[in-house]
Amino acid sequence: MFSGAQISLYPMSDDFVGVITSALGALDPYRERLRIETDDVSTLIVGTPDVVFAAMQALFVAAAKTGKHCVLHATISRGCPGEPDDPICAVPEMNGPLAPLDERKAQALAAVSSIGQSGQPVAAQFSLYTLGIGQHMDEIYGCIDFIKSSGVFDRSKNFCTKLRGDAAPVFATVGEAFVRFGPPQGHVTIDLTVSANSPSSI
Amino acid sequence: MFSGAQISLYPMSDDFVGVITSALGALDPYRERLRIETDDVSTLIVGTPDVVFAAMQALFVAAAKTGKHCVLHATISRGCPGEPDDPICAVPEMNGPLAPLDERKAQALAAVSSIGQSGQPVAAQFSLYTLGIGQHMDEIYGCIDFIKSSGVFDRSKNFCTKLRGDAAPVFATVGEAFVRFGPPQGHVTIDLTVSANSPSSI
Repeated sequence: MFSGAQISLYPMSDDFVGVITSALGALDPYRERLRIETDDVSTLIVGTPDVVFAAMQALFVAAAKTGKHCVLHATISRGCPGEPDDPICAVPEMNGPLAPLDERKAQALAAVSSIGQSGQPVAAQFSLYTLGIGQHMDEIYGCIDFIKSSGVFDRSKNFCTKLRGDAAPVFATVGEAFVRFGPPQGHVTIDLTVSANSPSSI
Repeated sequence: MFSGAQISLYPMSDDFVGVITSALGALDPYRERLRIETDDVSTLIVGTPDVVFAAMQALFVAAAKTGKHCVLHATISRGCPGEPDDPICAVPEMNGPLAPLDERKAQALAAVSSIGQSGQPVAAQFSLYTLGIGQHMDEIYGCIDFIKSSGVFDRSKNFCTKLRGDAAPVFATVGEAFVRFGPPQGHVTIDLTVSANSPSSI
């Protein structure tokens, strides 16, 4: 399976280059487990879902700690039929059959409940897409059920679900949505936006 | 059918509030044909695809004309089974059967070739998701074929396709991808990022 994300960090600051550059150090603990490629629109990070989510969280929290209004956007994907398998993405436990939805919701909740705190409050919203299957809304509604019990559910919006809370459980919740819903070897994508220090935050 | 987008505008500037506020006037010609709702993460615009794309382009070009590095992100959706029909989104011609892929590629190219110029160069990348159908990659590869002939194709990236050129044909190309691929009444989404005035632009 191939998994990773195209990520972009947007500091709403004249010193956006400085904020981004100083935050990049937060990726250092993950660099050996990721393939990274940057251009003028986004940075590709390829690796297992747990490392991809940990790296995104570390990068975003480092930028948000500057106090500037910062947004991270990520186009996250696994199992795209157009991408080659890559050893850096291998997750042996994602090879089995699709477990019952209730079982997966319980696993996702258990995983999120064990997460600590980062000390950085965030707002986030995301859309989950399970592709190439007929009853895709069953997976999406199952995921929304899980989100509502996650402790960081804010509200349902058109086209996405909004979260609010500490960065650690927020990223963990989106990470669980990514790996638990849709078939283990299926094509699943997420369109994720995470925001901190917005002056219009309520 | 229900169609629209969750859009966010990110000016990389200490005066991001001023840039956003001044650009909002560009939405005025479209307000009567859109339902608009704003929170601290994004603004929902609901309407027909042509109006939604015209409004996004107008808003982004107005912000980019300030010369600041600006990014627009949009989560665009049509036909989501979880959304109610809305008269403001009615497009009678999107009720027919799915035409052959070659015919739709030709229609998309013809539409893009008649587009003028905005005078604002941009880079963009997007992912098209056609949901609830088995052979979703056929539609996606068909769309990529169209993009490669669109005149604004830059390169294929992991998880997305990158465009570069004037804002008008770039938004038109993404708009054609949105309405021509996937069944007319199907669930289709796009994850779109548009960038202008990036210091790392090549």
